[in-house]
Amino acid sequence: MKWKKNVKPKSRLPVPEFRRICGPEHVLTAPEDRLAYSFDASKLSALPEAVILPGSAAEIAEILRLANAHGFPVYPRGAGSGMVGGAVPDRGGVVLALTRLNRILELDPDDMIAVVEPAVVTGRLQQEAARHGLLYPPDPASLSFSTIGGNVATCAGGPRAVKYGVTRDYVLGLEAVLPTGEVITTGTRTAKGVVGYDLTRLLVGSEGTLGVITRVVLRLVPAPEAVCTLAAVFPRIDQACRTVTSVLRARMVPTTLELLDRATLEAVEAHVQAGLPVHAEALLLLEVDGPDAVVDDHARRIEEICREMGARDVQKARDAASRERLWSARRAISPALRRIRPGKINEDVTVPRSRIPDLIRFNQSLARKYDLIIVSFGHAGDGNIHTNIMVDRSDPDEMARAERAVEELFREVLRLGGTLSGEHGIGITKSPFFQWEVHPGALDAMVRIKQALDPNNILNPGKMFVPNRAFFERDKG
Amino acid sequence: MKWKKNVKPKSRLPVPEFRRICGPEHVLTAPEDRLAYSFDASKLSALPEAVILPGSAAEIAEILRLANAHGFPVYPRGAGSGMVGGAVPDRGGVVLALTRLNRILELDPDDMIAVVEPAVVTGRLQQEAARHGLLYPPDPASLSFSTIGGNVATCAGGPRAVKYGVTRDYVLGLEAVLPTGEVITTGTRTAKGVVGYDLTRLLVGSEGTLGVITRVVLRLVPAPEAVCTLAAVFPRIDQACRTVTSVLRARMVPTTLELLDRATLEAVEAHVQAGLPVHAEALLLLEVDGPDAVVDDHARRIEEICREMGARDVQKARDAASRERLWSARRAISPALRRIRPGKINEDVTVPRSRIPDLIRFNQSLARKYDLIIVSFGHAGDGNIHTNIMVDRSDPDEMARAERAVEELFREVLRLGGTLSGEHGIGITKSPFFQWEVHPGALDAMVRIKQALDPNNILNPGKMFVPNRAFFERDKG
Repeated sequence: MKWKKNVKPKSRLPVPEFRRICGPEHVLTAPEDRLAYSFDASKLSALPEAVILPGSAAEIAEILRLANAHGFPVYPRGAGSGMVGGAVPDRGGVVLALTRLNRILELDPDDMIAVVEPAVVTGRLQQEAARHGLLYPPDPASLSFSTIGGNVATCAGGPRAVKYGVTRDYVLGLEAVLPTGEVITTGTRTAKGVVGYDLTRLLVGSEGTLGVITRVVLRLVPAPEAVCTLAAVFPRIDQACRTVTSVLRARMVPTTLELLDRATLEAVEAHVQAGLPVHAEALLLLEVDGPDAVVDDHARRIEEICREMGARDVQKARDAASRERLWSARRAISPALRRIRPGKINEDVTVPRSRIPDLIRFNQSLARKYDLIIVSFGHAGDGNIHTNIMVDRSDPDEMARAERAVEELFREVLRLGGTLSGEHGIGITKSPFFQWEVHPGALDAMVRIKQALDPNNILNPGKMFVPNRAFFERDKG
Repeated sequence: MKWKKNVKPKSRLPVPEFRRICGPEHVLTAPEDRLAYSFDASKLSALPEAVILPGSAAEIAEILRLANAHGFPVYPRGAGSGMVGGAVPDRGGVVLALTRLNRILELDPDDMIAVVEPAVVTGRLQQEAARHGLLYPPDPASLSFSTIGGNVATCAGGPRAVKYGVTRDYVLGLEAVLPTGEVITTGTRTAKGVVGYDLTRLLVGSEGTLGVITRVVLRLVPAPEAVCTLAAVFPRIDQACRTVTSVLRARMVPTTLELLDRATLEAVEAHVQAGLPVHAEALLLLEVDGPDAVVDDHARRIEEICREMGARDVQKARDAASRERLWSARRAISPALRRIRPGKINEDVTVPRSRIPDLIRFNQSLARKYDLIIVSFGHAGDGNIHTNIMVDRSDPDEMARAERAVEELFREVLRLGGTLSGEHGIGITKSPFFQWEVHPGALDAMVRIKQALDPNNILNPGKMFVPNRAFFERDKG
C-alpha cells in the first residue's frame, strides 16, 4: 500500500478566502497567535501558517474544500490538552481551533441525552448533568479544561472507566465534517441503533484524521446516590494486585481502582510530607458508588478483602472532604514528579488486569537496568498503568537510556497481551511504535479507510500510522 | 458515487478448488443442501450455488481470494436467525457457513474475557460464563440458537440492553478475514485501548459486508447476586411510559423494562387463557439485578412508583419459578401472534424513550386507518418497540395495506427522532428505506469504506445500502 508523503502547500494559503468565510477577526496570522496554537500537552510544537476559529460546520466545510483545492493541511484542535502531539501542526497549514463551538445545545433529562458542540469543556457538561441528577461518566484527568470534541477524537478514559467505560461508550451520534467537506450526521438519539456502518465509533478515537467533529449526542446515566472512597496500604505490590482481582471476582465493580507504587509514594511524600507509607510497595485507592445500602455494604466487604490480602492500613471516607483527603496523594503525583526531574515520559500502557504485577516488576527492573526513576501508577482496574520515566532533557545520556527503556517497555507490554495506549492515543509521539502493535493487515485497512475518506490527505496528516521520529523531540517547544 | 451493480459470476464456480481447500466433505452442492442454506428468519430465500463449511480463517482467506479472482459473491452465515435477510444468498455464489468454528477458546475469570469462535451459540457462552460467576449480558431473543458471530455482525441487543448495553459494548477485539483475503486482528484483550481506528466496532454491525468474523474477544462482567421481576398492570399506556421514565429518573437502572400493549395482551390471552388483564392498556415487566440489598430496595421503590403512576396490580417475584411465571406472558407473544394471522411483519423501530407513548398511539391509529391488527411490545427502557403488523400473505389487499402502514410507521419513527432498526439491522428487507434515515453524506462515506475494503463487491453484496425491493417477498421461500 502506497502512502502519500508529506503534504506541501502547492500555493500560498488563501487567507483572504478564510477571512471571507469566517470573518477577519477569526483568522489569525500574527506570530504570537500562531505560537499559541503550536503545541499541546506533549510539548511538541510546530508553528502553523494560520489559525482559523470557525463558527459553524458550514464554515468548516468551506475551509476543508479549500484545503483539498489548494493542498494545505488542516489540524482540528480542541483544548490542546492531548498528550501525544495529535493537535500539533507539524506540516505547515492551518490550525482549525474549534473554540467558538462551545454550546450545550440540549440536555434532556427524560431521554437522558445531551447534545453539545465540540468545545464544551467536559467538566462543565458534568456540572450541568449533575444539576439534573445525571452523570456524564468519562473523567480524564484533564476534565476541567479538556473538551468533549477532543475527548471524542481521542476516546478519552479516566479512573471511572472500570465501572463506566470510556468516551466511546457514551457517544450515540455525531455531526462531523468529512475531510472532503461534506457535513454528515451519524448514529442516533436513541439508546439502540444498528442502521448502517458504525461511522460514529469509527470517528471516535480517530484523532482528528477522518473528520472534524461539530456536534456530539451523548448518553447520560443516573447519578449515583452515594460514593465511598477507600485507601489501603499494602506491604507488597502483589497483594494490591490480587485485591483488585478479588474485589471484581466478588461481584463488585468499583468506580475506580487506582494503584500507586512505591516509587510514586516516595515522590509524592518528598513533595508534600503527608506521612505517606513510603515503605509499603503499594497504595490502592478504591471508590464505590451507587445506592446508599450498596455503597456501605461494598465498602465493608472491600475493606475485608483488602485485609485478607494483607493490607496494613485501610481508611474509608464517605463525605466529600474526607474523600478528597484520601485522593490528595493521587492528585499530588503530577506536581511531585515535576520536582524529581524537570521532564517525564508518560506512557499510558495497558495490560490485562492479571498481568499488572508483571508489568510493575518489569518497570522496577527497567529502572535498575537503565539507572532511571520510573514511577508506575494509575487505573489498575482496567490494567491501564501510567508508567512515567523521569528525565532531565538536558542530559543526553539519561535521554538515550530513557529511549531504550521505553522501547523495552513497549515490547514487554505487547508480550503481556497489552496495548501501547489505553487512553492517550498515538498522535506523533507513539507513531514510531504503531506497527509494533497493529497487525499489518489492519494497518492496511486503516490506510485504505483514510484514503477513501481523505484522498488528498489534508486532515491532520502525519499522525497515528505515519511513523514520525519526533518522539524525543518533545519539551523543546 | 457510482455503485457496482449486481455481481454475476464470470465463470462457473471453482468447486474443485473449494474441495481442495476445505476438504470435499465440507463443500455442499446437492440441491437439498443448498436449500437448507437458502433462507433466514426473514423467510426470504434464494438458492446458493454452493455451500462451504470452512475450518479455519486461512481457508476462508483462500475462498475470498478465489471470489475476487472469479467474481462470485460470498455470504457469511451464522445460525441463519437474522430477521432481515442478511444471510440470504440472493445473487448466486457461495454461502460460507461458519458452523465448524464453534469453540470457546478461552474463558479467563481474572481478566474477565472470553475468546470464542463465531459459531459458538450465545446461550452456551452464557452458561459457561455463569459457571465462573460471570455474565455475558447481550440476550437477543434467539440466544438459544443464534451465534456470537451473527450477534457481532448485527450488533444484537435484547431486553437487558437497558442496563447492560448491546453486543458492541462487549466486543474488545476480533480476528476477521477482509473481503480481499487478509486475515487481520483488531482491538485488544484489555478493557481500554485506543491504538488506531476502531476497526472492531466498524465490523460490529456491518452485517457481514466488510469481513468474515473468525474469532471474538469478549468482555464479561460479574454475575449479579440476585434478580427480581415485577409485573405491573396499567389502565392507560401513558402511565406505563411515565413509569419507565420515573424509575430511571429515580436513579435506578433496571435490567429490563418490557412493555406489552393491549393488542399484545389480547393476542396472548386468546392463546393461553392465563387471565391476563386484557382491559388494561399496558403491562410492564421490570427486572432489577445486583446485590441482594439493592434488589430488595429497588423492587420496593419501583413498586411504589408503579402504584403512584396508576398501576392497578403489581406482582413481584424473586425465585426463578415465580419470575418465569411473570415472564410467561412475554414469552407467549410469538406463538400467540401466529394464531391471529399466519404472517407478521416485525419492525424493531426505536424512538427516544420520551416518545414511546406517541409511537404506540400512532400504531393504534395506523391499525384503525388500515384495518390491520398491530401489536406493540418490547424494550421500552431503550425505546425499542417491536411493532408487529399481523398479515395473511395470501390476502393481497391486506398486504398492500400493510405495506402502506410500514411506510407510514417508518416516516413517523424518523419524525419522532428515532431509528428504523434498534437491533435487527437492514439486510434486504429494510434496504429500500435505508436512505430515509441515513444522511446522504454518511451513506456516501459508508459506500467509500465498502469500496475501499471490498473493491470487487464480493462479500454479502446487495445488502444494507443497496435498495432491494424484495421487502414483501418474504414468506415465499
